[in-house]
Amino acid sequence: MQDVENQTAPEVPAFRDDGGNVSGAFAALVSQAVTTGDAASLRALVSDLHEADVGALIEALDSGERPRFIELLGEDFDFTALTEVDDAVREEILEEIPNEEIAEGVRDLEVDDAVYILEDLDEEDKAEVLDRLPALERVALQRSLEYPEDSAGRRMQTQFIAVPPFWSVGQTIDYMRETEDLPDTFYEIFVIDPGYHLIGTVPLDKLLRSKRPMKIGDIMSEDQHLIRATDDQEEAARLFQRYNLVSCAVVDVSNRLVGVMMVDDIVDVIEEEADEDLKALGGVKGDEELSDTVLYTVKSRFPWLFANLITAVLAATVIAFFEHSIERMVALAVLMPIVASMGGNAGTQTMTVTVRALATKELHRSNAWRVIRRELAVGATNGLAFALILGSVAVGWFGIRDLGIVIGMAILTVLTTAALGGILIPLLLSRFGVDPAVSSGPFVTTITDVVGFFSFLGIATLWFGLS
Amino acid sequence: MQDVENQTAPEVPAFRDDGGNVSGAFAALVSQAVTTGDAASLRALVSDLHEADVGALIEALDSGERPRFIELLGEDFDFTALTEVDDAVREEILEEIPNEEIAEGVRDLEVDDAVYILEDLDEEDKAEVLDRLPALERVALQRSLEYPEDSAGRRMQTQFIAVPPFWSVGQTIDYMRETEDLPDTFYEIFVIDPGYHLIGTVPLDKLLRSKRPMKIGDIMSEDQHLIRATDDQEEAARLFQRYNLVSCAVVDVSNRLVGVMMVDDIVDVIEEEADEDLKALGGVKGDEELSDTVLYTVKSRFPWLFANLITAVLAATVIAFFEHSIERMVALAVLMPIVASMGGNAGTQTMTVTVRALATKELHRSNAWRVIRRELAVGATNGLAFALILGSVAVGWFGIRDLGIVIGMAILTVLTTAALGGILIPLLLSRFGVDPAVSSGPFVTTITDVVGFFSFLGIATLWFGLS
Repeated sequence: MQDVENQTAPEVPAFRDDGGNVSGAFAALVSQAVTTGDAASLRALVSDLHEADVGALIEALDSGERPRFIELLGEDFDFTALTEVDDAVREEILEEIPNEEIAEGVRDLEVDDAVYILEDLDEEDKAEVLDRLPALERVALQRSLEYPEDSAGRRMQTQFIAVPPFWSVGQTIDYMRETEDLPDTFYEIFVIDPGYHLIGTVPLDKLLRSKRPMKIGDIMSEDQHLIRATDDQEEAARLFQRYNLVSCAVVDVSNRLVGVMMVDDIVDVIEEEADEDLKALGGVKGDEELSDTVLYTVKSRFPWLFANLITAVLAATVIAFFEHSIERMVALAVLMPIVASMGGNAGTQTMTVTVRALATKELHRSNAWRVIRRELAVGATNGLAFALILGSVAVGWFGIRDLGIVIGMAILTVLTTAALGGILIPLLLSRFGVDPAVSSGPFVTTITDVVGFFSFLGIATLWFGLS
Repeated sequence: MQDVENQTAPEVPAFRDDGGNVSGAFAALVSQAVTTGDAASLRALVSDLHEADVGALIEALDSGERPRFIELLGEDFDFTALTEVDDAVREEILEEIPNEEIAEGVRDLEVDDAVYILEDLDEEDKAEVLDRLPALERVALQRSLEYPEDSAGRRMQTQFIAVPPFWSVGQTIDYMRETEDLPDTFYEIFVIDPGYHLIGTVPLDKLLRSKRPMKIGDIMSEDQHLIRATDDQEEAARLFQRYNLVSCAVVDVSNRLVGVMMVDDIVDVIEEEADEDLKALGGVKGDEELSDTVLYTVKSRFPWLFANLITAVLAATVIAFFEHSIERMVALAVLMPIVASMGGNAGTQTMTVTVRALATKELHRSNAWRVIRRELAVGATNGLAFALILGSVAVGWFGIRDLGIVIGMAILTVLTTAALGGILIPLLLSRFGVDPAVSSGPFVTTITDVVGFFSFLGIATLWFGLS
């Protein structure tokens, strides 16, 4: 980090602490400058910060200070920083800032960053901001915003360098040296025909290593990795991952080059996608963030708990069916949650692997049967192992030999069923177009609970003649 | 895709099917060529494929065919493809291939790819392969292999372009045009002092846009994002993500430039990291893959189920303590799993959010108290809501008014405890250096089960005087 010029304080604390978070001391100085309206000190503090650091700083401020922070910085505030903060934080800030300032702020951004900021505004504000932009920017933004949410079209940059194949390396380099309005960052140039169809790409390192008289058409790579603007961003992410890309051409329905996706956006998509699956499996909505309010979080988590309540009540009716058996042998009440819980955990294991393999496209029709057979074998094997262990525990605990046999049979049944349910339910849900990460849990739990209680209490009732 | 030359079959089926997987027809042709030992047809089929596609093809083959596939291709097989397959598949293949061929295969690879392949070999094979390499490659590989597993040093490329600041743009470009032995891919050049310390970087697009007489020192960016070779790859990934990097300098203990990390490796790290957390939360080891054998999977999943067994038995002893109450009021046995299950789910919700926030560094000491208070408020609010709902269900079901009050109090207790446990346990584990994704589950379940059964059965015993 370079020395900060125009420093008013004698010593500025480090921006990040040892843990990599915004240091409390730095945040306090900024907070003080915001509260006292000291724009000069504020500028001195943040002017040299990277936009990502400004984003982290905004998150570290109290929510009331954030819009004031941006207003105080005025033209010195780079709106790109808003693409680096949590959605909830960004939405809150944008509500406080006048549309006029938002329009001022997004007009110099790359199209993908501007879209990222605008897409969460309500329709009225969005229209007003767009109206205030120069025609060229407005049209580019409107075109991107017309693509579906989470599509490649929303995440692409619309500025790129495209040259015809008959240009020479020297001509291309000269063109780049002379043209003012180039994209901020780029890693390859595109080679197009007169109809704007992509015919090749030249990575910059290749361009730099080639002699000036070489023709672009002779050094270009014809490997064509193309993303359609309407493709989901997750599809684009798979392509980047598979072929280790850093940028990729985006084309419209008639295969004309319309933009370029960059790997830094893809990194966010991959993280977001894994994050959503992880949270969904844990019964939390994908967009839940630490910055959400209590009320929002309560409302967001309620449906999952309610689904679980229905599951649990269903399982309880199975128990109620065997009330008489439990009254006659209360050891059953003690042991039955063990059976259900083992089933639930085994089912969750299989379900987790299945959901993840579906998300990463490792599991598909051609290997589904092999994986189902494997899970079944794993379930049965662990079922046998735990039948022996839990059977011995039950005999040792209650001194009833047959209780060991009964609970052993029940455990084997439920672990095998759990394996089947854990793979078949996500597979079926995904076949019917339902997100298996979100919906598999309650189904799998219902099956393992119902089968767990029913098999244990049922076998016990028959074996001991309790009915 | 260009037409494949030297084609022997009249028509080659598409490599990927509509779902993006290796098409069965293509895999069958390859499999046939491997089985009949028809090297010419095999070469014709795969010679134009991207290394990632070759990797996918290897995974689509039967495990017996894989080493034969590589041997038949001989020198035409690019070992980079082996970095694109599952760990289990790679290890199996490498066991079958003679060390001599492995040495032949890795000698032309980038150091990071070669390390990726060699690091899983056993010590003896690794030493033999290294011995067969030319001194230069051997030393570079040995140096990388000396860094800890999963460190940046293992994942870095050791070839990079570094120039002094007094060089001109033209001089630099000429140097790149004339030097044969450049890295395969690069996105920026490094500017160093005579001691090999990094003083700046120049992205290639910046270099291309600058006039030839400009001095490198005048166009370089002094933003220094540095990774230490001993840093964990996850730390490197955070840096890439935070600052949207595509490559980053790696330095040794004395701050000398020793390598460069590339974003495509980082993309894999980010995916792997999220994948491990997701699987760990589901009770599955992070390295579990669809290609694992039944026995390996059984062994890998057993410990988690065993931990859960201990948890469940603990909870059962709580139930056993109230056997007498259950005998006198069997409705308690019917309702108690509902209370425990609601607690378990609420605990998992909070735990999931906490584990994820710890992994992404969003949760840290400075905001921990705020988040704990929020979770507690969320738990209590949903606790109240479900106390009302479940209380009504219980009264309606069993016609005992006081049962509604008892289960309501129990639910409020357990959902509040679940929230506290769901956040405090991961926080504590992480404070003590234990991975919260792997270990939180059993603790949280134990707490919610024990508190669930104890509060419900305990309150009922006191309220109804059942003891």
